[in-house]
Amino acid sequence: MLIRIYNARIWTGEKYIENGELWIEDGKIRLVSQVCPLIYLPWDREINAEGNLVMPSFKNAHAHSPMVFLRSYADDTALDEWLHTQVFPREVKLTRDDCYWLTKLAIAEYLSSGISLASDMYFHLDGIAEACQECGFRNVILEGITEGNGPKDKLFKRLEWGMDTMKKTGNLIEYRLGLHAEYTNSEQNIQAMAEFAKAHKMPVYTHLSETKKEVEECVERHGTTPAVYLAKQGLFDFGGVVYHCVHPSDDDIKVLKEHNVSVISCPASNIKLASGIAPLQKLVESGINVGLGTDGPASNNCLDMFREMFLASGLQKAVLSNPSAMDGEFVLEMATYNNAWAMGMNNLDTIEIGKSADLIMIDLHQPNMQPVNNVLKNIVYAGSKSNVLMTIIAGKILYEKCEYNIGTDIDEIYSKCGEITKRIISQ
Amino acid sequence: MLIRIYNARIWTGEKYIENGELWIEDGKIRLVSQVCPLIYLPWDREINAEGNLVMPSFKNAHAHSPMVFLRSYADDTALDEWLHTQVFPREVKLTRDDCYWLTKLAIAEYLSSGISLASDMYFHLDGIAEACQECGFRNVILEGITEGNGPKDKLFKRLEWGMDTMKKTGNLIEYRLGLHAEYTNSEQNIQAMAEFAKAHKMPVYTHLSETKKEVEECVERHGTTPAVYLAKQGLFDFGGVVYHCVHPSDDDIKVLKEHNVSVISCPASNIKLASGIAPLQKLVESGINVGLGTDGPASNNCLDMFREMFLASGLQKAVLSNPSAMDGEFVLEMATYNNAWAMGMNNLDTIEIGKSADLIMIDLHQPNMQPVNNVLKNIVYAGSKSNVLMTIIAGKILYEKCEYNIGTDIDEIYSKCGEITKRIISQ
Repeated sequence: MLIRIYNARIWTGEKYIENGELWIEDGKIRLVSQVCPLIYLPWDREINAEGNLVMPSFKNAHAHSPMVFLRSYADDTALDEWLHTQVFPREVKLTRDDCYWLTKLAIAEYLSSGISLASDMYFHLDGIAEACQECGFRNVILEGITEGNGPKDKLFKRLEWGMDTMKKTGNLIEYRLGLHAEYTNSEQNIQAMAEFAKAHKMPVYTHLSETKKEVEECVERHGTTPAVYLAKQGLFDFGGVVYHCVHPSDDDIKVLKEHNVSVISCPASNIKLASGIAPLQKLVESGINVGLGTDGPASNNCLDMFREMFLASGLQKAVLSNPSAMDGEFVLEMATYNNAWAMGMNNLDTIEIGKSADLIMIDLHQPNMQPVNNVLKNIVYAGSKSNVLMTIIAGKILYEKCEYNIGTDIDEIYSKCGEITKRIISQ
Repeated sequence: MLIRIYNARIWTGEKYIENGELWIEDGKIRLVSQVCPLIYLPWDREINAEGNLVMPSFKNAHAHSPMVFLRSYADDTALDEWLHTQVFPREVKLTRDDCYWLTKLAIAEYLSSGISLASDMYFHLDGIAEACQECGFRNVILEGITEGNGPKDKLFKRLEWGMDTMKKTGNLIEYRLGLHAEYTNSEQNIQAMAEFAKAHKMPVYTHLSETKKEVEECVERHGTTPAVYLAKQGLFDFGGVVYHCVHPSDDDIKVLKEHNVSVISCPASNIKLASGIAPLQKLVESGINVGLGTDGPASNNCLDMFREMFLASGLQKAVLSNPSAMDGEFVLEMATYNNAWAMGMNNLDTIEIGKSADLIMIDLHQPNMQPVNNVLKNIVYAGSKSNVLMTIIAGKILYEKCEYNIGTDIDEIYSKCGEITKRIISQ
C-alpha cells in the first residue's frame, strides 16, 4: 500500500514545512520532504492536501474509554457521591462484550478528534483490546490494580494473564503495569506490584494526587505524600507515569523527576470534578515529561484533545497571571510527542522516515483557521475537532471527512451502546 | 416561506420536548408542539430532524469581529505589550472595506458554531453592519467611545450618526451606546455619555474591571472602583451591560444589581490574557443577569460558544472547589436567554409562537453526543461546533451541513481576508 500526500503544510513535530510532500509505504513514512522529488511510483492513492496541515496524530495518555455509557449521566455532583452512587454500582454490571462495544464508540470519537492512540486503565482489558485491534486503533492498556487483586500470587497471575493476552491480541495493543492508586491498595499490594515491575523491568502507571483529600489521607496513613510514599516502596524503580498530579508537594516533584516519571494532566476532568488545577508550568520547569489525557468520558465529558490543549495553556496563564506561560507550540508537543514518550511509544512521536504513519490532516479552510497566520499556535488556541479532515493510523485512513472506516457501521455502534446504557441504568 | 421541521427533540429554552414539531412562517415561529397536528400546509421545505435537537441559537454578547485578521498573530505575550505593539498600531490601518470583509469571515465562524447574533464594539460600524445585513446575520453594534471622540458636541454628533446609520442599514442591525472603558475616558466624556444616554433613555455598554491593574488605577484616579465610579457619573441610570467584570468588589456587585446592569463574561479571553477568572457564581447569586461573550478573535482565538460554556462552568467548579457550581443547564441559558436579554433582544430568547425563528439544529448522531443521556448538559460539557448541523436566522437557513448560504462565496472571503492581513501586517 503506497500513499502519496502532496501540496501539504507539514509539521513533523520538530520542524514546519510550508509546501511539503509525504509518502506512506506499508504503514510507515517513506518520505517527508519540502520539494517533490521527480519520482513516480505506483500510488494506491494520491491525496492533494490543498495546503492543509499534516501533523503527528494526538495521543490520549489517560482514559477509561468504556465509561462513555455514563456520559452526561451524573454531572454537577460531588466526586464522592458521583463515584459511589453513580459510577461504581453501575460499572460492576459491565460485561466483556459491553466494554467491547463501548470502546468502539470511544474509538469513533477519538478518530473524529484526531487521536490515534489511547491508554486505557479499566476492566475487561480483553474486550477493549479486541475492539481496538479490530478497528485499527492503538491502545496502551493497563489494569487498575486494587486491593481486591491481591495477595501476591493472585496478583502476579492476573498481571501475567494481562501481559500474555494483550500480546496475543495484535500489533496495535501494548500492555503496561497499572496500579489504580495508593488509596485503593495496601502496602503489601503496592510492594508486590513493585516486585513484579522490577522482575519485568517495567514502569508502573498510577493515579496520583488527584484531590487534596487523597493527599491528606495518604499523609495521615503513611506520614508522607503519595509520590514520595510510592517511590519509597520501589514502585518507580523502572520509571512510571502518574495521572492528574493536581496537588504535588515539592518533594513529590523532586522524587518524580529523580525516578524519570512522566505526569499526565487531565485539565478538563480536573476542573469539572472541582479537583483543582495542576501546576503544569512548575512540573515542566522541573524537567518532568508532562503530557495530556482526557480521563474518562463520564467526568470530562468528551474525548477531545483540542479542549485539553487550550485548558493546559489557558489555566496556567490565569493561575500564574502570566500570559506567556505554557506557550501554544509547547502544548502541541505535549499532546503528541510528550504523550508518545510517556507511554513508551517513541516510534510514534514525530513524522520521520521509517517511523509508523500515525498522522492527521487539519483543515485550514475553515473560518477558525483563517487567515493563516501561526498555524501551530492557532491549533491550540482556536482549533476544534471540526478541523480534523483525516486520521491515519499505521498508514491506514480510519477517518476521512466525517466518515469512519473501522469495519463496523457507526449507527450499529450507537444502537448497541444505547441498549447497553439502558440495560445498566435501568437495572 | 413556510418551513416544517419534524421528528425533532426541541429545547425551547424553557422546556424540553422529546418528539417535537416546529413550523416557521415568514421568519417567525408559527408552531412548536409535541404532537404533530394533522394539518398539511404548502411547505416550501420539510426537514426531517431525525431525532436531532432544535434549540435557540447562541448569542455572542461581546465581540470585536473584525479582529480576525490578528488571530494567532500575537499569542503568549503580555497584555500591555500585545495591545501597544501588536494591536493598536495595526488597527489604525483598517479601512471600512477591510472591516466589511473581516466581519464576513467572523460571520462564517459564528454560523458554524451556532451563533446567530454578535454584539460588536469596534470602528467602522457601517462596514460591519453592511456585512451583517448582507449575510443575514444579526448584530447589536456599539462604538467604543474613548477620549478622542469628545468633547460633548462632537461626541453627540458621532453617536447620532451611529444611531441613524445603523437604523438605515436594515432590520438585522441594532445600535447601542458603547463607552470603551473608564480608563480611556475623562470624567467629562463619561458625563457627556451619561447625559446622552439619559436623553435617549438608553443603557450604556462598557468594558469593566477586566484586569487588576485597571481596577487599581481607577481607585488611584477616582478613589473608588470602576462600577461604583461609573454609576456615580449616572452612566447606568437607564441600565447597562459591562464586559468581563473579572475583579468586581462587593460594592461593584451591589451597584450593578441596583442599576439593572448585566455582566458579560469572556472566560476564554480572560484566561488566555491572564486577566483572571470572573466570580460568575457570586454574580449570579447576587441576582445579576450574567451572559457570555467570546471577546475578539485576537485574544481568544476563536468565536465558539461551546468553549465559553464549558469554561463558564468548569472554572467556577475549580475555583470554588464545588463540582455543583454553575450547573450545565444554567450555562446553556446564559449563552442563549441571558445574552438575548442583556442585549435587549428579548424576542430572541426562546422558541415560542410569534417570536423570530433564530435557532440551530444540534447533531446528536455524533460520538460525543452518544449515548443520548442528558442532552442539554452534554451540549455544555461535551458539545462542539462539529455538532452544529444548521443555523437559522429570522427563518432563513444560513448554514447547513458545513455549507454557507450568505451570498458570498466562502473562498472569496478567505482570499480577501488573507490579502487584508498581509497588507496590514507587512506595512
